[in-house]
Amino acid sequence: MAGGPTVALDGFGAERGFEALAGGARMAAADGIRLRVFGPADRLGLARVDGIEVVPTAEWIGNDEDAVPAVRGKKQASVVRAARAVAEGEAEAMVSPGSTGATMAAATFGLRRLKGVRRPALAVQLPVPGRRVLFLDVGANVEVRAQHLVQFGFLGAAFSEAVLGVERPRVGLLSVGEEAGKGREGVGAAHALLGAAAGIDFIGNVEGGDLPAGAADVVVTDGFTGNVALKLMEGTAKAVTGAIRDAARSNPLAGLGGLLMRPALGGLRRELHPDTTGGAILLGLRGIAVVGHGSAGAEGIANAVRLAARCVEVDAVGRTAALLERGGATRGAPAAEPGA
Amino acid sequence: MAGGPTVALDGFGAERGFEALAGGARMAAADGIRLRVFGPADRLGLARVDGIEVVPTAEWIGNDEDAVPAVRGKKQASVVRAARAVAEGEAEAMVSPGSTGATMAAATFGLRRLKGVRRPALAVQLPVPGRRVLFLDVGANVEVRAQHLVQFGFLGAAFSEAVLGVERPRVGLLSVGEEAGKGREGVGAAHALLGAAAGIDFIGNVEGGDLPAGAADVVVTDGFTGNVALKLMEGTAKAVTGAIRDAARSNPLAGLGGLLMRPALGGLRRELHPDTTGGAILLGLRGIAVVGHGSAGAEGIANAVRLAARCVEVDAVGRTAALLERGGATRGAPAAEPGA
Repeated sequence: MAGGPTVALDGFGAERGFEALAGGARMAAADGIRLRVFGPADRLGLARVDGIEVVPTAEWIGNDEDAVPAVRGKKQASVVRAARAVAEGEAEAMVSPGSTGATMAAATFGLRRLKGVRRPALAVQLPVPGRRVLFLDVGANVEVRAQHLVQFGFLGAAFSEAVLGVERPRVGLLSVGEEAGKGREGVGAAHALLGAAAGIDFIGNVEGGDLPAGAADVVVTDGFTGNVALKLMEGTAKAVTGAIRDAARSNPLAGLGGLLMRPALGGLRRELHPDTTGGAILLGLRGIAVVGHGSAGAEGIANAVRLAARCVEVDAVGRTAALLERGGATRGAPAAEPGA
Repeated sequence: MAGGPTVALDGFGAERGFEALAGGARMAAADGIRLRVFGPADRLGLARVDGIEVVPTAEWIGNDEDAVPAVRGKKQASVVRAARAVAEGEAEAMVSPGSTGATMAAATFGLRRLKGVRRPALAVQLPVPGRRVLFLDVGANVEVRAQHLVQFGFLGAAFSEAVLGVERPRVGLLSVGEEAGKGREGVGAAHALLGAAAGIDFIGNVEGGDLPAGAADVVVTDGFTGNVALKLMEGTAKAVTGAIRDAARSNPLAGLGGLLMRPALGGLRRELHPDTTGGAILLGLRGIAVVGHGSAGAEGIANAVRLAARCVEVDAVGRTAALLERGGATRGAPAAEPGA
């Protein structure tokens, strides 16, 4: 299966260590995805794996470092080299299991923004049983203006259609009430702009409870609210399933009941597991960048690489640019791009 | 049990109708709580119930009305009269199952703010299994400044200690990272102020995932993020338990398993049910106001009244005022109260 996309993989930063990372790389390579892995060749043990090239790299950026100065200063850090590989055409997408901040900074500096995009946004597929809900921004932009929220709608709709295969994705704006005027100031203005925008199917405000219900295919919000909401959702699902597990252990009959239910619950467990969706995607750049879930095991790393490869295969970047153009979302682009 | 606190109950607005409301009133009265119910005497059927006085009221404010002008204009509306009953000493607390906005407006205008409090906040006890986590603001203030977040910390800590019985409640500030500097601008400033404040046990920033984990006893945030988070948490718990129920129905063996587990799950179901905690409490006023959960049944209405009565019994207002004073949180009060 040579001829598949090439993904640049940051070999550092996987919380579960080099073994999990190498295991994920092997699984992705077995699918026919070619990988360039930037990391310590001796620790990774990937020297003779078909489809994988290890680029020996010693420097890396940790979670505790201030991302922007670290990316500017450490030109040889693994995540910076992965971004450069995409920029220079040696790979078509990048994946990092490490620091979200460093990955965002390396990708934004290295890959540049799509025409007219002011702020790239970090998007995740929510663990909603039976649905494919895309949620953004989950942390790239702590504070946003109305125009940014509008662009998030376009970025999310393009990704939902191209990569998740949702036809005419319904776009919702996260707020505290269904009425147009509810919410913060920027939210009200974004509502008006999205309602008037061509090219996307805006369904209006959605509330917190609408996310797990799958009321919209794409939900946009600022990176503060989005980050809190994502972590809260993951934590709540974990707490509820944990409490149910505890209940099953509380007496022998309940334990037997839990055992009998287990096969039927397998699919749900998979759907709720953070490894399943492959991680967060930075949208709005001229290249693909995927941030793996910090605690991802080999399966999670493999899924992050598969997600990146899939984005390349369906030309997610090109289709996003086309939708932005069609919707006029590139008007008012920075002065550096007067043709927008 | 005469001599218990008197609660003014708004007789309109219960989504499940007058029967649910009257049923809840009866249950609370059976506990020795005295009630003044403002509603349609003929519909409520509470005429001869010991401890309940129905004050015939025909006017009310619906969910679809603009709360502030409605409360200003309709002096005889049930929720306005309930607030007036507290202000005039005919009752010691008010409860409404109706519009959150109208209840907040009626209480804020009618009961006045505690010395030094700039913005009352709406607090709820989160459905966290085995914990008593108080979360505010869940919708009273869509945008806040750092000083408001600090006051929410004091209001929440006082309530947690006085009403929920948590000793030295740990107060956390909701943000997108553990580091002090992370989050929006106001959040960083609030972090510094809370860290320096006397009288409360501030544990620093908490993230979305820390809420269901019970990492803090009191978590403060702005009303936009809080409202989204609360509804998201309720919705996620519902979606997960629903998916598990579906799994139990997917085949006969799993169904038997679910049946065997059911008794062990009863406690969890109760803990997760919105009726259990009694509703949201408006903190920072010189009186108690409880907003029942919109979809509350009789048990939920009764629990809202019980919560209000408990606040009176433990002198939640007096203890809150004392903590605010001790912590110096009343400094910088509005010019109208120069002694603060």
